[in-house]
Amino acid sequence: MVRGIGDDCAVLKVAPGHQLLVTTDLCIEDFHFRRTWHPPASVGHRCLVRGLSDIAAMGGEPLACFLSLGLPSRLSQKWVDGFLRGFELLARRFAVPLAGGDVSAAPAITADIVVAGQIPSGEAVLRSGARPGDRIYVTGELGGSAAVLQRLYAGKRVTPSRSDCHFYPLPRLEAGRWLRRRGLATAMIDVSDGLSVDLAHICQESRVGASINAQDIPVAKRANLELALHGGDDYELLFTAPAKAKLPATAGGVKLTAIGTIVDHARYAGQVGHVGQKDYLSAIRILGQNGQERILAPRGWQHFTKKR
Amino acid sequence: MVRGIGDDCAVLKVAPGHQLLVTTDLCIEDFHFRRTWHPPASVGHRCLVRGLSDIAAMGGEPLACFLSLGLPSRLSQKWVDGFLRGFELLARRFAVPLAGGDVSAAPAITADIVVAGQIPSGEAVLRSGARPGDRIYVTGELGGSAAVLQRLYAGKRVTPSRSDCHFYPLPRLEAGRWLRRRGLATAMIDVSDGLSVDLAHICQESRVGASINAQDIPVAKRANLELALHGGDDYELLFTAPAKAKLPATAGGVKLTAIGTIVDHARYAGQVGHVGQKDYLSAIRILGQNGQERILAPRGWQHFTKKR
Repeated sequence: MVRGIGDDCAVLKVAPGHQLLVTTDLCIEDFHFRRTWHPPASVGHRCLVRGLSDIAAMGGEPLACFLSLGLPSRLSQKWVDGFLRGFELLARRFAVPLAGGDVSAAPAITADIVVAGQIPSGEAVLRSGARPGDRIYVTGELGGSAAVLQRLYAGKRVTPSRSDCHFYPLPRLEAGRWLRRRGLATAMIDVSDGLSVDLAHICQESRVGASINAQDIPVAKRANLELALHGGDDYELLFTAPAKAKLPATAGGVKLTAIGTIVDHARYAGQVGHVGQKDYLSAIRILGQNGQERILAPRGWQHFTKKR
Repeated sequence: MVRGIGDDCAVLKVAPGHQLLVTTDLCIEDFHFRRTWHPPASVGHRCLVRGLSDIAAMGGEPLACFLSLGLPSRLSQKWVDGFLRGFELLARRFAVPLAGGDVSAAPAITADIVVAGQIPSGEAVLRSGARPGDRIYVTGELGGSAAVLQRLYAGKRVTPSRSDCHFYPLPRLEAGRWLRRRGLATAMIDVSDGLSVDLAHICQESRVGASINAQDIPVAKRANLELALHGGDDYELLFTAPAKAKLPATAGGVKLTAIGTIVDHARYAGQVGHVGQKDYLSAIRILGQNGQERILAPRGWQHFTKKR
């Protein structure tokens, strides 16, 4: 970083031969977190992890982060300090300097996270590179975050430990970079909205279909298949790799699991009876534990609502 | 732009030999604009101008913008369309593509604007380069935006024309780049918080004092000296240049006016009787129209409040 906080703009170096990555994510009280459920450090951590996870999903390296913070006037300094502590702990763990941002009064806690990163030119792993025959993989386990959320909604007490996948999820930066460097991933996305939605994004952008096996999906402890398919906020990586690629059991310290295969989109298009965009959105099939294949409709992460 | 909306990150090219600039600014309903005062196109325009103006103040060139938008569920589509139209018109005028962002539900209209730009390496005009003896300049005229705001607060009807400096201010990108290319500006900032505050930022970062002449300040039509000194939201450039530099009457189509001189900070430090940061914040003197010199305390832009 050439120049951080204290000028009109931050000034950053992007390494020669590299392209710039930029991602932004809004976190708003009662929509992305609840003050009664999430300790301030978890809110700060979860805010930053969303940006870092997007960099991971391109196979990139984070350079700096920026935080725009809207704060209600009645909010305690203790809450803000806790938020910043959670944010900074994660930023330091991945050596990402806070290079700027903005602060304003606001009716509800609002945090917009921006992460800038870099990637060797032309090597960003896009959502659009999946080809029929590619195998589909995920890192880690799915549904764990949604399982915690389900318990919170049910009014159960949940102690937010530092290792909890809902309160303190980790971005898969090392795994994403490893896959990109080896040229193994043809398409990649992070599982922030839920597997069914995020796989639909890959299908849509790559103009392909997908066939996955229920019994192969790595379901987190305390979760179930439903939560693993549709729960969001996991921040694992979902990627595709050529069928003949030899993938190891782990990458960057996290487990890799093959869960299915990319198929020609035309194979499903007629069956779901839709045209245009809706074709792609319905182009996922899942082979159930009962041996029956069914269409997997994308149905993922819903923002928290006060009504629930 | 290599890849815009539709992936986990935008992928951008920064030209070889250039550094990256990044700025973020939050706009929140009732704090930065009012729906009853500002047409949606003006809100969208004003949101983007804040980011572009920061790029101008470094002497940089905008590459792409990102918009995170929080929208109340009851907000009309018409309002959102108007906002985006105002935003896009300005973006197109300065050829800045919208490369990404985020959308969320929110209790109040929230827009966080991020602009990424580039600048030849080492050429960013910082706030910290002013030296005793440098002359102080501003582009255009000051106080015009605050004069409109004053009329709005007084309950007067104001028709928001497309050329109005409050509703549709323009970023001084061309002037900023021109000054940077000629190597004329030693320090620069945009007048977003008000001249007294923004000049104090230059003094603080450059560890200098400043002496300005009231009668030289270019006061906008319908404004007065008080508004020109302390009103914010002008988006003109405030910069310093060596005394021997020959500046033209205009740059990038806007008038340049010399308003004072940078002085050794020590000359004032004793007089204001403060130590540390407060020294710098009080290190501005203004020679009044009455021939008397007084300390100019920084007092600028206040967020709108519902109470007012």
